[in-house]
Amino acid sequence: MNFLKEAIVESKKAIKINEVPVGAVLVLGNKIVARAHNTKESDNDPTQHAEIKILQSYCKKIKNWRLNGYWLFTTLEPCLMCAGAIIHSRISKVVYCCKNSKYSTAKIIQELSENNNINHTISWEFKEDIGFQTLLLNFFKTKRDK
Amino acid sequence: MNFLKEAIVESKKAIKINEVPVGAVLVLGNKIVARAHNTKESDNDPTQHAEIKILQSYCKKIKNWRLNGYWLFTTLEPCLMCAGAIIHSRISKVVYCCKNSKYSTAKIIQELSENNNINHTISWEFKEDIGFQTLLLNFFKTKRDK
Repeated sequence: MNFLKEAIVESKKAIKINEVPVGAVLVLGNKIVARAHNTKESDNDPTQHAEIKILQSYCKKIKNWRLNGYWLFTTLEPCLMCAGAIIHSRISKVVYCCKNSKYSTAKIIQELSENNNINHTISWEFKEDIGFQTLLLNFFKTKRDK
Repeated sequence: MNFLKEAIVESKKAIKINEVPVGAVLVLGNKIVARAHNTKESDNDPTQHAEIKILQSYCKKIKNWRLNGYWLFTTLEPCLMCAGAIIHSRISKVVYCCKNSKYSTAKIIQELSENNNINHTISWEFKEDIGFQTLLLNFFKTKRDK
């Protein structure tokens, strides 16, 4: 299964409710165990990004905050908040298909890891998806035009 | 009212349930509108730091994720996750009484701000409280000794 495509499917659910199209899926072994999309505006909650939502709902479900061995696939390079939460949860790997245009969280986290400033190392992989990048740009263009 | 002292009162509630003693209060004008402490272990949720809990509960209550004008007082320099969430919420100022011993989130955020990489600027103030620092060190020492 193409897990990034599944994250993109989630991101399209966000567009339908006029949210920034970010979607994510959490994977263990070769199976999706949780999925979520951004609902910040709908929930009036600045923390309700796809990644935080997945962590909160899934950890509650399994009654464990430690997600060692899990992989997270997300459409957009996680913001500082989400990257921080991912480190806390001990997720093993993050795969994303669109870079943050303003700063690289992956780079900030990597530097902190190399200096032993954080106690969990995550593997970050960027797998470009032009289709999603176009979708994201179009979303913001439409917003600006309105 | 000494708002940092009130944040310390919250942090002591965390110790009572065997959580890392971090407490926070949210202030508007000269009044505490929300308070919270760390419940990560109790809730089996890696995101349940005092700061995230305050944002989630208070924004839900007022049905608005924008907290411009609000100040957050917290015992410990916010982690990356919490600092990211604070930026998203547009809180105006963060005051803390104990520095993160491993890295300075305030410095990372300030650098991003100066390079215009984030679209909200927060004022950070460190007001040392030796009493709280001793309390935190003792908490970890007791943990290690057990």
